[in-house]
Amino acid sequence: MRVEDLDTPAIVIDRKIVEENLKRAQAHADRQGKKLRPHIKTHKLPQFARRQLELGAIGITCQKIGEAEVMADAGIGDIFIPYNIIGKPKLERLKALHERITLSVTADSATTVDGYGATFTDAGRPLTVLIECDTGGGRCGVQSAADAVALAKRIASHPGLRFGGLMTYPPRQKVSGVDSWLHDALKLFEAEGIRVERVSVGNSPDFFGPTRVDAATELRPGTYIYSDRMQVTYGHGTLENCALTVLATVVSRPTADRAILDTGSKSLAADLSPSPGHGHIVEYPDAVITMLNEEHGIVDLSRCAMKPAIGDKVRVIPNHVCVVSNLFDVVHVAEDGQVIEQLPVAARGKLS
Amino acid sequence: MRVEDLDTPAIVIDRKIVEENLKRAQAHADRQGKKLRPHIKTHKLPQFARRQLELGAIGITCQKIGEAEVMADAGIGDIFIPYNIIGKPKLERLKALHERITLSVTADSATTVDGYGATFTDAGRPLTVLIECDTGGGRCGVQSAADAVALAKRIASHPGLRFGGLMTYPPRQKVSGVDSWLHDALKLFEAEGIRVERVSVGNSPDFFGPTRVDAATELRPGTYIYSDRMQVTYGHGTLENCALTVLATVVSRPTADRAILDTGSKSLAADLSPSPGHGHIVEYPDAVITMLNEEHGIVDLSRCAMKPAIGDKVRVIPNHVCVVSNLFDVVHVAEDGQVIEQLPVAARGKLS
Repeated sequence: MRVEDLDTPAIVIDRKIVEENLKRAQAHADRQGKKLRPHIKTHKLPQFARRQLELGAIGITCQKIGEAEVMADAGIGDIFIPYNIIGKPKLERLKALHERITLSVTADSATTVDGYGATFTDAGRPLTVLIECDTGGGRCGVQSAADAVALAKRIASHPGLRFGGLMTYPPRQKVSGVDSWLHDALKLFEAEGIRVERVSVGNSPDFFGPTRVDAATELRPGTYIYSDRMQVTYGHGTLENCALTVLATVVSRPTADRAILDTGSKSLAADLSPSPGHGHIVEYPDAVITMLNEEHGIVDLSRCAMKPAIGDKVRVIPNHVCVVSNLFDVVHVAEDGQVIEQLPVAARGKLS
Repeated sequence: MRVEDLDTPAIVIDRKIVEENLKRAQAHADRQGKKLRPHIKTHKLPQFARRQLELGAIGITCQKIGEAEVMADAGIGDIFIPYNIIGKPKLERLKALHERITLSVTADSATTVDGYGATFTDAGRPLTVLIECDTGGGRCGVQSAADAVALAKRIASHPGLRFGGLMTYPPRQKVSGVDSWLHDALKLFEAEGIRVERVSVGNSPDFFGPTRVDAATELRPGTYIYSDRMQVTYGHGTLENCALTVLATVVSRPTADRAILDTGSKSLAADLSPSPGHGHIVEYPDAVITMLNEEHGIVDLSRCAMKPAIGDKVRVIPNHVCVVSNLFDVVHVAEDGQVIEQLPVAARGKLS
């Protein structure tokens, strides 16, 4: 089937662009001497996770146990969940997962550490726990190197846990601050005689940037596999490097300058950055998607020389691609305009 | 199971509040002499659609064929799809649906009408087509009463179609403009000798408002079943009338004034209106959810006298509830704090 024959809205992924994006990122990490541990939240597909590993990734990153379960079922053997996992139902699932794969998680509090410690008690197969550090991102994380050291000691005090290193989700474009935070922490750990075997750093926006976090041993970018309008705005490649588009149909042309697409916030997500508009229409680069309702994309065609007709199909590059993957049950992989595969988004909607 | 024992994030729906909201809306429509045709996009649950019909609704509204198929499978017999349905795959599904229920759809162009006309050819069982009118909403719709009349004639020219009336998705708080648009159109239809049997008008924001669209014969509100922070801002009830909350766990307390919840844009959706914040935390009304990442809700506690601890569960009333229902595979119905039912969100993720 040709891409343009798909019913809409539909996600179409260009296989060649994905392959180029994966190889470029792996080469980039290799050149920096960093390990690559891709975040699968962007694609949620075991098939692409396996390809990332084949190309050199040391393991994958999942944000939720449910995502990790899907990936483990698909044979992925090394998974990092950079999240404070709390509460009995989740800890029990975590324990079952730990039985069958190489698993690591994070903590930023004694409460989280003690929860792991009470659940994981086998010193012969300890759970690896990294400490999340707030290096300026203002989300989770210990606030100081001293707090990190204290928490590492607490981890070590539990027989079923082992201290696995440091982890951070850094603020964008503040690489030097992140690096000095981590280097200060590493000095303190060294002074305490505690080995830090891993320093795991997100994320896509700064992955291809001009500067890098020197202290990092592994990187966790996610978005690079597809790229999107936001990444292009950040200076990472061009719109031609965007592998995922949402195929949509023009369902209405109520005025000379207005078109309505059958894709809205339920399929394109509502991220408004970068402006203007809610995505880039490949066939009509001067069109602006001015507003999204749930099932309608409202398009301003006033700057377009040629204008689409009702029934025409167009491809939209989303603003933020990760949130789009979570809205579709299936994606279509295409090559040279031909649909070669339809894949269920196996790790979609895993909220816990 | 008690609500607080649910794993998080989870949708919890208070059955009694739903019942009150449904009854209040039906009584309100009855008092106005309008028929109620609730939009099911808000709940996506056959169980609640059936309850809406039991209480007096004349049928339901679905935005997508996939939603209508789910509702027809559940025994709902009268469904309106207020959308231009275009393209062979959708038209074939529409035809199959038309065989088994009372179905009506809309069109705002000759292209859409002719697509219906080519698909539906049985004069003994014609498809009912309403004309969508742009009464100021700036989305789909014919631009003038004359265009509406011309399109009605085109509908009538197809043996397998019948003209079913007018439909509009009105701009908020511009009831008088909508009403005069529709009254002008009705006059023109009368002058042409064309009967307009239905005038179908959305939507929730103006449903309970002080003024009403006099020309309307049926109303299509959706959000009223759960209500949300946006509806409360519009003056429709209070936070106590909000039936749906997202139960979340505090997973981190990195600073004295910051908490992190395990609900982000992947479960709460990213609608920022009304400000401030991305939802209302029932237990901490002075807290502000300042930012959502996909799996993190960042909360400013600086104005809170009491502050939550790691592991505490809280309930969040979303800003816009319809988009939240689409992010969960199941919802939990509760009464007096006890979970009485877990329901699959049967019409979730139906994009076409």
